[in-house]
Amino acid sequence: MPDFRRQVPEGDNRERRVCAECGFIDYENPKVVVGSVVAAGDAVLMCRRGIEPRRGFWTLPAGYLELGETLQEGAAREAWEEAQAVIELEGILAVFSIARIGQVQVIFRAQFAGTGAPTFAAGQESLDVRLFSWDDIPWSEIAFPSVRWALNAWRSGSAVPLGLPAGNPADDPRGTGPMMRPETEGL
Amino acid sequence: MPDFRRQVPEGDNRERRVCAECGFIDYENPKVVVGSVVAAGDAVLMCRRGIEPRRGFWTLPAGYLELGETLQEGAAREAWEEAQAVIELEGILAVFSIARIGQVQVIFRAQFAGTGAPTFAAGQESLDVRLFSWDDIPWSEIAFPSVRWALNAWRSGSAVPLGLPAGNPADDPRGTGPMMRPETEGL
Repeated sequence: MPDFRRQVPEGDNRERRVCAECGFIDYENPKVVVGSVVAAGDAVLMCRRGIEPRRGFWTLPAGYLELGETLQEGAAREAWEEAQAVIELEGILAVFSIARIGQVQVIFRAQFAGTGAPTFAAGQESLDVRLFSWDDIPWSEIAFPSVRWALNAWRSGSAVPLGLPAGNPADDPRGTGPMMRPETEGL
Repeated sequence: MPDFRRQVPEGDNRERRVCAECGFIDYENPKVVVGSVVAAGDAVLMCRRGIEPRRGFWTLPAGYLELGETLQEGAAREAWEEAQAVIELEGILAVFSIARIGQVQVIFRAQFAGTGAPTFAAGQESLDVRLFSWDDIPWSEIAFPSVRWALNAWRSGSAVPLGLPAGNPADDPRGTGPMMRPETEGL
């Protein structure tokens, strides 16, 4: 393993982990978790975790956003990977900061795609996947506080159209359209 | 520098950069940019960039979220660092994915704190900081497309209350309150 020491790199103003052997700077950044509350009528899709932490507890289909993905792509991928569900996103339901563990969570409101009966199944990292009506949600076996927060946000806002926040403009959904000039490096 | 090779670590399903010398896995994750549209009446606060990329072009007070910060803390810090402005956040105005460069941007709607005349000044990374009324915004000298998107979102939504998305519950604004059990590691 690398021989990391904490020091302030040149031109920076914070201590970072720097490898004493090779000089590699390990910039530790907050991570983005993306997920969704997928509803079918008054029931929501939940996954029983097959991996640690919190194996056996119930969560929403969610996980780390990967490099090169939009938030929407990440939410759809996680619903497929964890619940074998093809979903249609309606908009952003909640944005949480979990500062203690360096996470930002973006939770969408979603439905099952298509017009037939919802189809889903346990993905590789899930022990079980089910649709729960509100009163049947296993509240005492929820994996993480933010799952509860997201469910409450869904419950209190489920009749409200999701207007703001704005997302990417329709002609540039991945932030890579013609408006993006070569020299541009984001904000 | 480390001798990185691309390979799939055990238990993973994607190629990562792994140091051939010490085995360090460099998980590259999307980065979070946080900023705000700070308004005083019908004017918005903008900063002329003093650093590359896009030195000399106009942007919003925004930058990378740091580890251990909430989104709200990061937005307030950036407004202070880049524009010496103390701000009050109203809510999330826009969430952008810039997939090509691995960014998620969360932009707040904000006002200057306090009741007096707005005070601001160029911070270390800014050449100039000004309040522009809509028609005076230097549209041909905007640093990044997402600055334009955020300004447009502000313009079209500035009369609308920012309801959803939900944020952290009031009793746990940093995601570290008593609901958070020791074994919890986020979603």
